[in-house]
Amino acid sequence: MNPVIVLVRPQLGENIGKAARAMLNFGLTELRLVSPRDGWPNPGAGPAASGADIVLERAQLFDSVADAVADCAHVYATTVRKRGVTKPVVTPEAAAAEVRARAERSAILFGPERSGLDTDDVALARTILTVPINPEFGSLNLAQAVILVAYEWSKHAPSDADGHAALASPPTTDLGSPAPQEELEGMIEQLEGMLDGAGYYFPPERAPTSRRTLRTLLTKPAWTSQEVRTVRGVLSALAGRKQHRAEEA
Amino acid sequence: MNPVIVLVRPQLGENIGKAARAMLNFGLTELRLVSPRDGWPNPGAGPAASGADIVLERAQLFDSVADAVADCAHVYATTVRKRGVTKPVVTPEAAAAEVRARAERSAILFGPERSGLDTDDVALARTILTVPINPEFGSLNLAQAVILVAYEWSKHAPSDADGHAALASPPTTDLGSPAPQEELEGMIEQLEGMLDGAGYYFPPERAPTSRRTLRTLLTKPAWTSQEVRTVRGVLSALAGRKQHRAEEA
Repeated sequence: MNPVIVLVRPQLGENIGKAARAMLNFGLTELRLVSPRDGWPNPGAGPAASGADIVLERAQLFDSVADAVADCAHVYATTVRKRGVTKPVVTPEAAAAEVRARAERSAILFGPERSGLDTDDVALARTILTVPINPEFGSLNLAQAVILVAYEWSKHAPSDADGHAALASPPTTDLGSPAPQEELEGMIEQLEGMLDGAGYYFPPERAPTSRRTLRTLLTKPAWTSQEVRTVRGVLSALAGRKQHRAEEA
Repeated sequence: MNPVIVLVRPQLGENIGKAARAMLNFGLTELRLVSPRDGWPNPGAGPAASGADIVLERAQLFDSVADAVADCAHVYATTVRKRGVTKPVVTPEAAAAEVRARAERSAILFGPERSGLDTDDVALARTILTVPINPEFGSLNLAQAVILVAYEWSKHAPSDADGHAALASPPTTDLGSPAPQEELEGMIEQLEGMLDGAGYYFPPERAPTSRRTLRTLLTKPAWTSQEVRTVRGVLSALAGRKQHRAEEA
């Protein structure tokens, strides 16, 4: 079940829009707002959402964190710094795996831009979610924290609760099939013929080593048939240039 | 070795600052800028960096992507959409593991805000880096793409915030380290010079496509410095043969 993203007392409408955009990139659509400073709806949110309007339109408004997470069995409080609280602390990765494995609804709390969640907000959560960060420079803004959590969640998504297809993973590496060996041989033969004529294999006793070096180098790329044809075209052009120049001379 | 983050023709100084902030959060400090639209330094960058000034101060400026990655053996091109290129495509997670496991320097390219990397930029890279994203709403901004990549990289760091040990994968040395990008460029330049003379790039309007095809094909093998030298020797021999025959004629 997809987690609910809860923004607690967010200050700028722009940041609410950016959070919505961050969510939708990774397939999260359920946004809840607790007492946004400038009310709701907020005219600054839409432009910053860059098209993630559906998340803003469906956003629900609450007066308290307790109300916002009332239907959630698992609540995570996102904090950057360690708090003097005795609760388990997990990374976004671990949280994502937990959320994904559960049948019940989870909520992830994010605090106001300037101050983060306060102690009473954190007290409502069973688990602390902390992004491991440069100990000498920890400066994540609200939308960045949301995007890292949403991104990790998406990595565990085989297909979401509504049966939607998985997120578009990069296509499996398709470099094309390597050309059949005989095409590779034809190319090597063509090159060796040209190099023979150019006196490349000198002194003769080193020729076998040179041939082996070239063969290894030309076998390594796993070129496709098309690529082998291109290389042969290049070789023919170079050979033709020679003839052309020879005619000129 | 920490990867280099390369912003290619970034438009807004503000976004350069945000990218620097995103980097430093996860321990990355080496930023390179290729032809930023509004020049460099840019007064909009500092405030947006929120204290990540050290990254901006050390940022290096380049005129071309080729120059920016000249000392890097592995180049990743970050793209959101599928491209009609036959290169391996990896997630930020897989890229982070690869970068971490290697002894040589890696560079990760990010394109301009509006358009992303163009086809020629992508052609310089051996690998495509794509963030798996909602197929119905893919809208990552520049700093968000940077932070996801930096975050994944940090997860493979020698010890994370909790002091966990690194996932120490042995570097894959059996194929030899790929040559630095500038050596590859030198080889491509040599071949293109020969092909220009041979009339290979005809008709002229197809030349950019032909050049890209050749570049992709020659980038694919991950040839070592020794192998690149061998290929250059082969090319020199072929060029010499031409002259030799010309003299004969």
